[in-house]
Amino acid sequence: MTPWTLVYDGFVPEEEGLRESLTALGNGYFCTRGAAEWATDDGTHYPGTYMAGGFNRLTTEVAGRPVVNEDLVNMPNWLPLTFRIEGGEWFNLADVDLTTYRQELDMKDGLMIRVLEFRDKAGRETALTSRRLVNMARAHKAGIEWTLTARNWSGRVEVRSGLDAGVINNNVARYRDLASKHLETLEMGPADDEAIFLLAQTNQSRIQVAQAARTRVFFDGEQVPLEVERTTHEEDERICQDLAFQIDEGRPVRVEKIVRFFTSRDRGIYEPGTEARTRITRGSDFATMLRYHRLEWGQLWHRCDITFAGQDRIQMVVRLHIFHLLQTLSRNTIDLDAGTPARGLHGEAYRGHIFWDELYILPFLNFRLPEVSRSMLLYRYRRLDEARAHAQEAGYKGAMFPWQSGSNGREETQVVHLNPKSGRWHPDLSHNQRHVNAAIAYNIWQYYQATGDERFMAVYGAEMLFEIARFWASIAHYNPKRDRYEIHGVMGPNEYHEKYPGAEEGGVKNNAYTNVMVAWIMEIALEALDGLLDHRRDELRETLEITDEEVSLWADMAHKMYVPYHGDGLISQFEGFDDLEELDWDAYREKYGNIQRMDRILEAEGDSADHYKLSKQADALMLFYLFSEDSLRAIFERLGCPFDEHTAPKNIEYYYKHTSHGSTLSLIVHSAITPGFDPDGSWDMFMAALESDIGDIQGGTTVEGIHLGVMAGTVDLIQRGYMGAEIRDDVLFFNPLLPHKMHGLKFSLFFRGMWLDVELTANKIKIAPQHGGPDTVKVGIGDRIYYLRSGYAREFAL
Amino acid sequence: MTPWTLVYDGFVPEEEGLRESLTALGNGYFCTRGAAEWATDDGTHYPGTYMAGGFNRLTTEVAGRPVVNEDLVNMPNWLPLTFRIEGGEWFNLADVDLTTYRQELDMKDGLMIRVLEFRDKAGRETALTSRRLVNMARAHKAGIEWTLTARNWSGRVEVRSGLDAGVINNNVARYRDLASKHLETLEMGPADDEAIFLLAQTNQSRIQVAQAARTRVFFDGEQVPLEVERTTHEEDERICQDLAFQIDEGRPVRVEKIVRFFTSRDRGIYEPGTEARTRITRGSDFATMLRYHRLEWGQLWHRCDITFAGQDRIQMVVRLHIFHLLQTLSRNTIDLDAGTPARGLHGEAYRGHIFWDELYILPFLNFRLPEVSRSMLLYRYRRLDEARAHAQEAGYKGAMFPWQSGSNGREETQVVHLNPKSGRWHPDLSHNQRHVNAAIAYNIWQYYQATGDERFMAVYGAEMLFEIARFWASIAHYNPKRDRYEIHGVMGPNEYHEKYPGAEEGGVKNNAYTNVMVAWIMEIALEALDGLLDHRRDELRETLEITDEEVSLWADMAHKMYVPYHGDGLISQFEGFDDLEELDWDAYREKYGNIQRMDRILEAEGDSADHYKLSKQADALMLFYLFSEDSLRAIFERLGCPFDEHTAPKNIEYYYKHTSHGSTLSLIVHSAITPGFDPDGSWDMFMAALESDIGDIQGGTTVEGIHLGVMAGTVDLIQRGYMGAEIRDDVLFFNPLLPHKMHGLKFSLFFRGMWLDVELTANKIKIAPQHGGPDTVKVGIGDRIYYLRSGYAREFAL
Repeated sequence: MTPWTLVYDGFVPEEEGLRESLTALGNGYFCTRGAAEWATDDGTHYPGTYMAGGFNRLTTEVAGRPVVNEDLVNMPNWLPLTFRIEGGEWFNLADVDLTTYRQELDMKDGLMIRVLEFRDKAGRETALTSRRLVNMARAHKAGIEWTLTARNWSGRVEVRSGLDAGVINNNVARYRDLASKHLETLEMGPADDEAIFLLAQTNQSRIQVAQAARTRVFFDGEQVPLEVERTTHEEDERICQDLAFQIDEGRPVRVEKIVRFFTSRDRGIYEPGTEARTRITRGSDFATMLRYHRLEWGQLWHRCDITFAGQDRIQMVVRLHIFHLLQTLSRNTIDLDAGTPARGLHGEAYRGHIFWDELYILPFLNFRLPEVSRSMLLYRYRRLDEARAHAQEAGYKGAMFPWQSGSNGREETQVVHLNPKSGRWHPDLSHNQRHVNAAIAYNIWQYYQATGDERFMAVYGAEMLFEIARFWASIAHYNPKRDRYEIHGVMGPNEYHEKYPGAEEGGVKNNAYTNVMVAWIMEIALEALDGLLDHRRDELRETLEITDEEVSLWADMAHKMYVPYHGDGLISQFEGFDDLEELDWDAYREKYGNIQRMDRILEAEGDSADHYKLSKQADALMLFYLFSEDSLRAIFERLGCPFDEHTAPKNIEYYYKHTSHGSTLSLIVHSAITPGFDPDGSWDMFMAALESDIGDIQGGTTVEGIHLGVMAGTVDLIQRGYMGAEIRDDVLFFNPLLPHKMHGLKFSLFFRGMWLDVELTANKIKIAPQHGGPDTVKVGIGDRIYYLRSGYAREFAL
Repeated sequence: MTPWTLVYDGFVPEEEGLRESLTALGNGYFCTRGAAEWATDDGTHYPGTYMAGGFNRLTTEVAGRPVVNEDLVNMPNWLPLTFRIEGGEWFNLADVDLTTYRQELDMKDGLMIRVLEFRDKAGRETALTSRRLVNMARAHKAGIEWTLTARNWSGRVEVRSGLDAGVINNNVARYRDLASKHLETLEMGPADDEAIFLLAQTNQSRIQVAQAARTRVFFDGEQVPLEVERTTHEEDERICQDLAFQIDEGRPVRVEKIVRFFTSRDRGIYEPGTEARTRITRGSDFATMLRYHRLEWGQLWHRCDITFAGQDRIQMVVRLHIFHLLQTLSRNTIDLDAGTPARGLHGEAYRGHIFWDELYILPFLNFRLPEVSRSMLLYRYRRLDEARAHAQEAGYKGAMFPWQSGSNGREETQVVHLNPKSGRWHPDLSHNQRHVNAAIAYNIWQYYQATGDERFMAVYGAEMLFEIARFWASIAHYNPKRDRYEIHGVMGPNEYHEKYPGAEEGGVKNNAYTNVMVAWIMEIALEALDGLLDHRRDELRETLEITDEEVSLWADMAHKMYVPYHGDGLISQFEGFDDLEELDWDAYREKYGNIQRMDRILEAEGDSADHYKLSKQADALMLFYLFSEDSLRAIFERLGCPFDEHTAPKNIEYYYKHTSHGSTLSLIVHSAITPGFDPDGSWDMFMAALESDIGDIQGGTTVEGIHLGVMAGTVDLIQRGYMGAEIRDDVLFFNPLLPHKMHGLKFSLFFRGMWLDVELTANKIKIAPQHGGPDTVKVGIGDRIYYLRSGYAREFAL
């Protein structure tokens, strides 16, 4: 193992076994998809196409309606490539004697490599090496290269290369009763003498997707393609081209399949079919494509890598996580109206809906690829009108972004859900997770803090902040008895407590996380209003009809949101949490072993999680994750609520005991907030989070798609927890708490126009500002603030 | 007349007459389109829909292939609205006795108003007032409001409201032999009890366009709609709804038709049909729509207006020009991948192709709506790959943007053209107008200078500049005899000289405008390279493979481009211009009167413009337009070429005499460069340019679409010529040369993050920086530089 490569040796030939074994190895879907490359040529074996490198937004962006879900669809499969010898059977892994099977995900270069040696029934020994990429340097290009060597035979070979619109969505077992076919074929045919093309359209969203493929064969080391006999077959839903040629013992041939693809949502195009057909004729070869693809990946890693001295496994997995993040969001997605689906572009679970995962993703991107962050915020901005309509329909003002956001920003949260433990369906009230509207405001502000992008705030950010503030002001009410503002009927991130025991109505009262976030949002909305140019402030106030009374209300709410407590400085997760029953944790652990999904266990027992003091995941503790202790103290002090040096440890300890960590995101949060007083616990949770997808610790959910929030979260927790990075008052603070098991970290950050190269060890931090940009930026180490000059490195003892 | 309104009284009922009379009045197509509102319900009367307010990019963005031109198409027509009384004939202007006809374009509020009073054959007298808008506040909305008053009758009225995909392109007479039908209908039907919808698709580009319309009737002054009897008719290509109700003598009723429209190219949508159907049900009324529409127009004018003390006609026409610019490009187009078609969205001439008009448009927008400028540059950036392929196919390096750019950035310049004077077809070599690649570089730099948008330069701008510089370096060659770089085979902006007399090959040698622009581009490419952060420079140099040798070449070219001269300080428009024959201008003027199109006249006589010293429009003189004398002197000095105080007047005088002004853009350039030594001539050309579209001075071309470059150019010339505005070395210089016929100007500019309110009179300039933004910006008056502080006004004597 190198820290740049994920390797898998060995092979289990049965379909399900293959899926499981590859998943267990940890790169899940990526491998499963890869296997389709030489699965039999039965269309149903291609459950979809995971594009390893930056293109295919369709998988998630056209997410469909609940239940019917017609449009959670992908591209036609561009991978089909198989061969046969002397007119025999088409190659099938199950029919050969495999002597070598080795699969590598080369993350440095963004390459999928597979090495096979096998003997067929006729005793012919053959070696096949495959390299595959989706071009990161320029969108719309992909390629597969095969090197095929006849070890002990010569003969006529036919290579079959296809484009297949017969793909179905069968990746998630529990969705298999739903419609699985989402593409219809519109057109296919030859693109020129060597190339084929195919144009399909999604059923409901009517998005056209075009592909064109050129397949050529070379003697290894030669530039001029071999003359081959080509035959093209068109079927209902796919087109294939067979290339026949002679292969000689011991003389390797290279097969190159180059693909161009476009959708009707692309910019700068005429029509996707024409684009694919025209551009495939312009010629490109695998080596050239690979050269630029490598350059781009090199630059991405230069910006995004975090290096761990001497910890190869951690290094490899952190890179695996960053790699998957960059598969989903990269320079190629900036212009695509791309949101952040919970499973990346990787699997079909959650049907591509957009939740709040960007809360864990943006802080990493803000400092490395700020244009990508900006594009994710624009994704929300484009759906602001839908969020306004959503608020209005619910009787609120401003904009209410939905918990599960479909393609056009509509609410797509399920209204019933199934407990697989009991087989019963229940009403699902999780749409009351209005806190996604806190996450979006937080993301806007963090992006602005990291970049200083006034232009974004003036044109987009401020408007979203004001509309979100306005929403919170309208869902809150003033309680004169307490002289406080309260919010009822919402759910915190906890997710177990959909309502009070026996209540008719959904939601709880005064979720602490929500209320504190709202107090903070009111403060930053006012700061944003104040920070606008007079001219722009006047425009926005006029357009949005923001009155002086409304501004006063926001200011009042910043000081008077109600925060519930129960006993001795403990923040109540929500009002009444203290009145719930204590769960007999030990008894349930003993009885069930894994109690991550206590909600399902209780429901199956005829009980309900509503009755107990328990959380699926961090809720009130999210506050300690999103804010440093200093920042949080300032918010609480403004609210006139108690906060002292015991607040953090006391609450963390209490809620840790009451959390089942039913979501791995919970591990991220707990790990990030505990390195100061429970370094070993923090480390263990970090390790568990790191292994969660690669080890598929949630019992098979990884095959349905990686957990992008958690993958990004492991990096976010390094940044928040171990580096202690936070921006306050235009200063980038570092408050490092490096676990003693971590020997050191190196990374680069882009802050307010300046790149900083940072080296962190247990007892010192070295910051080297690169040349160019502003003369200085302000960096804080502990409580002290330094002006770092472009080009002058500084070292600080910790 | 008020300076905010264009009014037309009177009516010529015949179709062609209507078109001409309305066009002569000056708002051309806008009115023609308006007339369709109550033309008969024969589909062919609706040549397309001009959307008065910011939406419909389709008209131009899907511009098609030459000759066939399948996709220069628009939306289905949303305007059809007519009525009949007591089951009689549907209303037809030709059948009634019109006692009042008044039409107003209210530019302040972006409203089209029409007032009619008429008597029908049965003697019934009726008044009808129509107000129409396409919502500028939120894209995707439009509305028509009718107020209908029965003067001397009561009875049953039926209003017919339709959506019509049967539109054809018949606006340009000489294109009428080409395919004119570009839409096919996909779906239609009711959207709910009150609303109808229609989904169509363009033939070739397969862009889906959906519309939904709700029509309601009210007694004037009442909020609750009248109960009406509704009948819906579906035909092949259109859907209509008839609303029947009773009307009483003297009691006005209001008819509201509210429309929502989406295309498959929109962002943040699910599918256009669903969006239109869903959103029409959310309810909206004309009054609410108008309120926000007005607010938005108010803000646009607040940013973009230029006021002229006491000159109502000039004021009105300048506003008409700004209004048309804002119809084509506004906040609503930022997210639309919108280019700048030569005829706006206004007519079908040039088939929506994108030329270089943005050269005249961006300087105005840079200072007022910089996000719109940025979006226009991104339009080019998205077509950079196509420009790269175009360069490569032509044997060059870097990126070569085409002279006439089609939807995906491909070359669409015609290869043959027709001389309507002679009826002969000739090869068209105008694709050799490579100078569009100078215009794009200039636009990038101007935007950057005005905004200081480093982010744009780092992510997009620098890459385009480098690729353009690289193109010029590859098309140029070094001539060791002269120790100069030369460029052969291109055409300057002149446009008459496609080649040397009798030559086989197209283009001329060393077009002075091109060569000087190239020298300047090399300089700014180096400046941009130098200005990047080290980190980003390294990335871009690696990705684009920019070598040290290449950078040296650029530097060398900045100093050694060849500039041809002929005699006594005269810049030769191109090498050999001096050897051409002198035209007998007076003889031709006498013979033909209007000699704007001398090329056609000469060709019809069996001669050719190639033989003569004549220009269709400014060519070498463009340099004096794009740069102040100081800036130009610096460029020439760097080149070691003669430039003194006589250079400008001498060249301007010489070329003025040799220019036929075959394009009205030429008037703009000449007017802007002459106020210093020929103020009266400058003023006269300004007046002529102002009147060119409103007076349709080019013999009927306005009906084919307004000339957006010229409209914007009249404002650009005020900015360049009369205000003398130019940014050099981070300083916004004003060097005012107010014509004595102009009493004073007031306007606002946004420069480097600060809004400046400027008041200019003959002998003083007052600049009032608004609050907010940077502490200071640098402003130059004449040669002196001042630091203006936010919030502190300054006055300077001139």
